[in-house]
Amino acid sequence: MFADRFNGITGSAIRDIFKIIAVPGMISFAGGNPAAEALRSDVLADIARDVLLADGKRILQYGSSEGYAPLLEEAVKFLRERGVEAAAENILPVSGSTQAIDLLCKALINPGDTILVEDPTFLGATQTMRLYQANLVPVALDDCGADIDALESAIIKHKPKLVYLIPTFQNPTGVTLSLERRKAVAALAAKYDAYIIEDDPYRDLRYAGEPLPPIHSFDKSGKIIYLSSFSKLISPGLRVGIMTCSGELRRKLVIGKQSTDIHNDQLAQAIVAEYLKRGLLPPHIEYICGLYGERMNAMLAGLAEMGIAHTAPAGGLFVWCSLPEGSDALELLNRAVKKNVAFVPGTHFYVNGGHAETLRLNFSNSSALMIERGMSALAEALAE
Amino acid sequence: MFADRFNGITGSAIRDIFKIIAVPGMISFAGGNPAAEALRSDVLADIARDVLLADGKRILQYGSSEGYAPLLEEAVKFLRERGVEAAAENILPVSGSTQAIDLLCKALINPGDTILVEDPTFLGATQTMRLYQANLVPVALDDCGADIDALESAIIKHKPKLVYLIPTFQNPTGVTLSLERRKAVAALAAKYDAYIIEDDPYRDLRYAGEPLPPIHSFDKSGKIIYLSSFSKLISPGLRVGIMTCSGELRRKLVIGKQSTDIHNDQLAQAIVAEYLKRGLLPPHIEYICGLYGERMNAMLAGLAEMGIAHTAPAGGLFVWCSLPEGSDALELLNRAVKKNVAFVPGTHFYVNGGHAETLRLNFSNSSALMIERGMSALAEALAE
Repeated sequence: MFADRFNGITGSAIRDIFKIIAVPGMISFAGGNPAAEALRSDVLADIARDVLLADGKRILQYGSSEGYAPLLEEAVKFLRERGVEAAAENILPVSGSTQAIDLLCKALINPGDTILVEDPTFLGATQTMRLYQANLVPVALDDCGADIDALESAIIKHKPKLVYLIPTFQNPTGVTLSLERRKAVAALAAKYDAYIIEDDPYRDLRYAGEPLPPIHSFDKSGKIIYLSSFSKLISPGLRVGIMTCSGELRRKLVIGKQSTDIHNDQLAQAIVAEYLKRGLLPPHIEYICGLYGERMNAMLAGLAEMGIAHTAPAGGLFVWCSLPEGSDALELLNRAVKKNVAFVPGTHFYVNGGHAETLRLNFSNSSALMIERGMSALAEALAE
Repeated sequence: MFADRFNGITGSAIRDIFKIIAVPGMISFAGGNPAAEALRSDVLADIARDVLLADGKRILQYGSSEGYAPLLEEAVKFLRERGVEAAAENILPVSGSTQAIDLLCKALINPGDTILVEDPTFLGATQTMRLYQANLVPVALDDCGADIDALESAIIKHKPKLVYLIPTFQNPTGVTLSLERRKAVAALAAKYDAYIIEDDPYRDLRYAGEPLPPIHSFDKSGKIIYLSSFSKLISPGLRVGIMTCSGELRRKLVIGKQSTDIHNDQLAQAIVAEYLKRGLLPPHIEYICGLYGERMNAMLAGLAEMGIAHTAPAGGLFVWCSLPEGSDALELLNRAVKKNVAFVPGTHFYVNGGHAETLRLNFSNSSALMIERGMSALAEALAE
């Protein structure tokens, strides 16, 4: 009775884990949520009121699928400051990067078409792609991001419609694609005329080192689609992200948007626009980087003490761990939950599962003290 | 290069008309927009601020695909008052009815599967369905709504996955499905085990007569999916609608929602919830019904004077007109635009086009005075 696209789709594999973390007293390293302290309800309450009083008749009326004009204006500047050149008419507001991926699949993917993804990768993205019956082909990544030789071979072999990369502080691993590889990816896009999705929501969450230019800044082919999101910077509850796009692809994305929800909620667009316009983002980023950086360091210290192999991110929200061979992170989770600490087993992030020894830890949503306690509990669970 | 689902899709056919109506001085009978006076930016500005100050940490954080709890609570009451019984766990918030249709297609429609639709019908809905490569089969409607014999024959012949109806003040015709036919539709759903979408955004916009119970109130099969929207009642810019659903279909819809945009903007959900909770909707409905009723009567008076055949709606936003046989509403539009008045030719609302003599007029978005002027201009254009 249901559509074939749901064959084998059972919903987010980590759904049950999110029920676990709702248990009071649970220290959660499982989600990818911003810290409560990072959500400025007081500031946003005033902005919400101000934009409705200033431009309410436009905000509350039907708007354009192409986006609320003041947000587009601010988005041009926001992207330029991050090395992404795009005119307002080449930016499409979306309700988070998830919708960007959904619309890209809608525009480009027939059942069986190939999408190359880093392995492991963000499981929300792969669920969206699977609902378009895409053929997901994993590309290995190491501490410098996606393996370029593997990527090129896969492009040649599979002629993908899309390549999906999270180059900066990747979810789930926290690794960052090196400068050389960024240039190489842009060159591959031009050489093979392949669309690359550069999903970059964590770029501004850097706690050490210097930012790298986005792949998009090396784009000579017009094939790099840059996704950004205000979920990690201002609020995920507002569901506002932006994507770059041009030409006939943009036309298809706009029609897709029109057919999916007509347009983004305009109040959320107006709030984000005004927040940016008032210059509130740079100091806020400084604040949350201080907060999250401390938390990341607490977690890395705990891991060092436990002697577990892990990635060494310089930002983002996640650390990726590999237990000794033969370990099972699912079993560890069961023991850990009894000690009131939760995380996501790494297997869920792999296109074809496996890798039972891996796990993802989030540090943004617990205080340094809680992280210390949680890591001790995890060490105990591991010792059992 | 693009996905097959875009074959033959060129975007909303009335897109060019919306460019025309943006011309300053144009009297537009083309859209389906609420009146500017009906958008209470002052009230909503206060509510936006209040909900963020009261529950900002929850609103701004990631939320549940199943919806923001206070909205679900209010939605139960809202629906009950309209004759629709549904528990909170059987209501899914969506970003407008458009997303409800998109998610239903995602859950149920394989390419080639049949959806029965009234002919003419809302063209946004058919565009969404076409992107799922649905086989759209038109069902005739008359002054009492969809023809039940035609509907039953089509169900038997085509075994549709979905039947899409707008039973109250239908878009584009303004006609309302009679009480007997509402019961008959519910009986057909039970007899043939067919899902019926009851899209009911105009129910509360009644300017004469008594409301009819929704089809859903006669549902014994669990097959009637009721869609409501706050776009016409509070604000379309906020993109908040609700749908009823249960069982495995609901599970698929939630997974679809998760994969499409994770969840609705929670601020918009919270604003609508608080608006309902404060009891602001009933007096507002009274106000807009007064406003729109006057406008509808002005338009009907103009049509009577012109001697054009038209439907006689008792509410909603639209009147449907049939020019004398052999007329061409597209040509009329070209002449009318030169006199600064615009409307939508009826042909766009038919699944297979044709019916060149029909047109749709909207009355909600122009004052009675403007309607009078616009109708005079239309009469002149018609006389030419």
